[in-house]
Amino acid sequence: MNDHYKDDSLALHTDLYQINMAKTYWQDGIHNRKAVFDLYFRKMPFANGYAIFAGLEKIIHYINNFRFSETDIAYLQEEIGYDVEFINFLRNLKFTGTIRSMKEGEVVFNNEPILQVEAPLVEAQIIETALLNIVNYQTLIATKASRIKQIVGDEIALEFGSRRAQELDAALWGTRAAFIGGFDGTSNVRAGKIFDMPVAGTHAHSMVQAYKDDYTAFKKYAESHRDCVFLVDTYDTLRSGVPAAIKVAKELGDQIDFKGIRLDSGDMAFLSKEARKMLDEAGLTDAKIFASSDLDEYTILHLKAQGARIDSWGVGTKLITAYDQPALGAVYKLVSIENDHGELEDTIKISSNAEKVTTPSRKKVYRIVNRINRKSEGDYITLWDEKPEDEPRLKMFHPVHTYISKFVTNFDAINLHEVIFDNGELVYQLPELKEIQRYAKESLNLLWDEYKRSLNPEEYPVDLSQRCWNNKMKNIEEVKEKVSKLKR
Amino acid sequence: MNDHYKDDSLALHTDLYQINMAKTYWQDGIHNRKAVFDLYFRKMPFANGYAIFAGLEKIIHYINNFRFSETDIAYLQEEIGYDVEFINFLRNLKFTGTIRSMKEGEVVFNNEPILQVEAPLVEAQIIETALLNIVNYQTLIATKASRIKQIVGDEIALEFGSRRAQELDAALWGTRAAFIGGFDGTSNVRAGKIFDMPVAGTHAHSMVQAYKDDYTAFKKYAESHRDCVFLVDTYDTLRSGVPAAIKVAKELGDQIDFKGIRLDSGDMAFLSKEARKMLDEAGLTDAKIFASSDLDEYTILHLKAQGARIDSWGVGTKLITAYDQPALGAVYKLVSIENDHGELEDTIKISSNAEKVTTPSRKKVYRIVNRINRKSEGDYITLWDEKPEDEPRLKMFHPVHTYISKFVTNFDAINLHEVIFDNGELVYQLPELKEIQRYAKESLNLLWDEYKRSLNPEEYPVDLSQRCWNNKMKNIEEVKEKVSKLKR
Repeated sequence: MNDHYKDDSLALHTDLYQINMAKTYWQDGIHNRKAVFDLYFRKMPFANGYAIFAGLEKIIHYINNFRFSETDIAYLQEEIGYDVEFINFLRNLKFTGTIRSMKEGEVVFNNEPILQVEAPLVEAQIIETALLNIVNYQTLIATKASRIKQIVGDEIALEFGSRRAQELDAALWGTRAAFIGGFDGTSNVRAGKIFDMPVAGTHAHSMVQAYKDDYTAFKKYAESHRDCVFLVDTYDTLRSGVPAAIKVAKELGDQIDFKGIRLDSGDMAFLSKEARKMLDEAGLTDAKIFASSDLDEYTILHLKAQGARIDSWGVGTKLITAYDQPALGAVYKLVSIENDHGELEDTIKISSNAEKVTTPSRKKVYRIVNRINRKSEGDYITLWDEKPEDEPRLKMFHPVHTYISKFVTNFDAINLHEVIFDNGELVYQLPELKEIQRYAKESLNLLWDEYKRSLNPEEYPVDLSQRCWNNKMKNIEEVKEKVSKLKR
Repeated sequence: MNDHYKDDSLALHTDLYQINMAKTYWQDGIHNRKAVFDLYFRKMPFANGYAIFAGLEKIIHYINNFRFSETDIAYLQEEIGYDVEFINFLRNLKFTGTIRSMKEGEVVFNNEPILQVEAPLVEAQIIETALLNIVNYQTLIATKASRIKQIVGDEIALEFGSRRAQELDAALWGTRAAFIGGFDGTSNVRAGKIFDMPVAGTHAHSMVQAYKDDYTAFKKYAESHRDCVFLVDTYDTLRSGVPAAIKVAKELGDQIDFKGIRLDSGDMAFLSKEARKMLDEAGLTDAKIFASSDLDEYTILHLKAQGARIDSWGVGTKLITAYDQPALGAVYKLVSIENDHGELEDTIKISSNAEKVTTPSRKKVYRIVNRINRKSEGDYITLWDEKPEDEPRLKMFHPVHTYISKFVTNFDAINLHEVIFDNGELVYQLPELKEIQRYAKESLNLLWDEYKRSLNPEEYPVDLSQRCWNNKMKNIEEVKEKVSKLKR
């Protein structure tokens, strides 16, 4: 069996059609033409007012290691049946292009290029699948985590979902994304090691079962750990679990640091209030109450509304799988390609579904920040050579409902793209994870609260510059005209 | 950055509380006591009538490689702060227990142990998280794929979801699970190589955009590939895409194998019927129509009901993320543990939520197959030492609504558990993937159609033997009595 995995490389982690297209480009001699692809999503996940970008660390790792291995090559030749000349081309393929991307932790929106690949056509094409696979998931989870953290507020939010994650990578990278979105720690020890994240955890029901009763189990745990949080619902929360926890805390006194109790089933509002009373009556007013039981932002909001006395929220399944919307749906679209004369030329994909029409040309994305209140006025997408920062008065208008418009003055226009790879060379230094989390918080501070409401937020403006908009319309008209000349 | 991943091992892919419990067991000297854990789920995913088990290959790989690496050990000591004696214990830890499991591809149901770990307490505890992480996802996807394949029937079903999967492992292992559930192939080349699965794929919109029009793009593709499926919706399906595909097919004749066209947007029922007419009128009656656009079992059922002329279904997001229920919720519960006298003793976890009460004791699971019609009468869970195959007349009754009962005669009682690891040694030879898929089909054949309906299926009987049921009730009563003696 191990043989199957021999020499496994992620270069092969792509859809077959990417390699089929590569074959066509290569055979036709256009594979090295410069192409520009935009990576973006079309709809806000969870109908949220913003999203949090995550995935760049993994992308850097993927691109840096992008080479077909010997067994990959053998497979493509022997099983898929590509000819030897093309195989030799693939054997030497590596990524030589340029990638510009928003920073991890950036607040991002639909229909703006989060990441832009400018590379030889064949290279840009083959990396599509992995890039989307990574960004789609990690951005989804960072966003979900941020939604939850908005409701949790200053209390502690912990990611506990490894066992329910969609396979191992999701557990690992999902909890990193949750941290970027504002979570305080994870239960996953591997993530703690790899990403230098705080890890948390105490014990499970099985330990109480192994010792047959709450008191013995808690006592044994206390004898082997200084920090103690006791899980109190194995048999009966209020009759057995909480009293046993209190007894052990009192008996051991300063020998342990009794952090509190954890509730994992039953009615969290009722149980937390009752448990709080019992702890307080026992003088254990510093003890905290940890909760974990199918929580998400909706449940937490309602528990808080009912006055639940919970200090720390462990969130699992609903976060790590983004249960209410488990896919983001980001796409990767060709917007420009080098022509016979070596110039970049626009391309467009038309659709009867208006939101699926692409925005042609190589572009830049600016965040327009009001200099007086330091709040964002919206994002502003321009053609490559525009300089909105030089304009004294910027017209911003909705790209669909164009009558919705405003003029902005006294602003900073911040280019949101960083160069990550420059002609194949990694030129970006990824910040520490804690710095990324801090940056996400700072980015969120640029938004008015209206965009941050979990239910029915205001729509944040993501506008096209007049030239960018005109250019899109021109491209649409050209295609329509071409198609209209075809007879059916 | 690469330093973070140095020496990465999956032994650390666990929740911190597992290692904290390990510490307590070890310090208390009970870590080597034999423990029995059941792995099972409580609710049928998608309210389906059955599930398809997948995940065993990855589990075997995980268990075989279970060792803490040097950097894991350093992390646990320096960052988590475990003492050196315990660290030395972890350094030498490997899996020495026994794992019994149903076979991959087995039809499985809620509340029956799919997999059973009988191992030293500390080992069984630490592997919990990874086992659940693997089984939860892969079983979910195999089941979802099977539901979809039931609707697709004899037509082709292809898994196309890599870009929307929840990170890379999900794309890879998810598509393998989909194949077990009955899918015919995948777009993921890496999965094709590692698992020896059929791979499929043609080209994307970007290729048509790169060549500016359908005809040129299809022609270039045809010049570089023998098998041709053309994607026809980049600009206008019926005016441009389909006519261009027909033109290229006619022009190139026998030089290519024109397999057909792919539709990826718009109304699939209408477009497929129109495209079928156009292909037929051009004499291309063998050409197939491939569809891919946010498909799932519901959409496919409705498209078929409307007479869509689709021959091959590419399913992405909705399958690979199990969109309508993205987590299975399998649990891993201690049912038996060695006591001071070296005997296995029952344990139970009580809950105010009836379905969360565990079924104590080491058990076996039998499938009761009627010898006359070769259909299954239900599954039958017994205590370890029962021999239902020796009983001439088996009483089967519902474990909650006990009045629902029947007597079964002339049956085979098939023990569903295979020994996978025997005292740490791998003794099971995993079948080839195609054989696993065949086995899943065969297992499904044991079920009456009523259990296979995608909407409101009959409930398949998963019963406890009388002794197993009595034993559970006795355990519940004992805990209740113990708790009732505690003052509140």
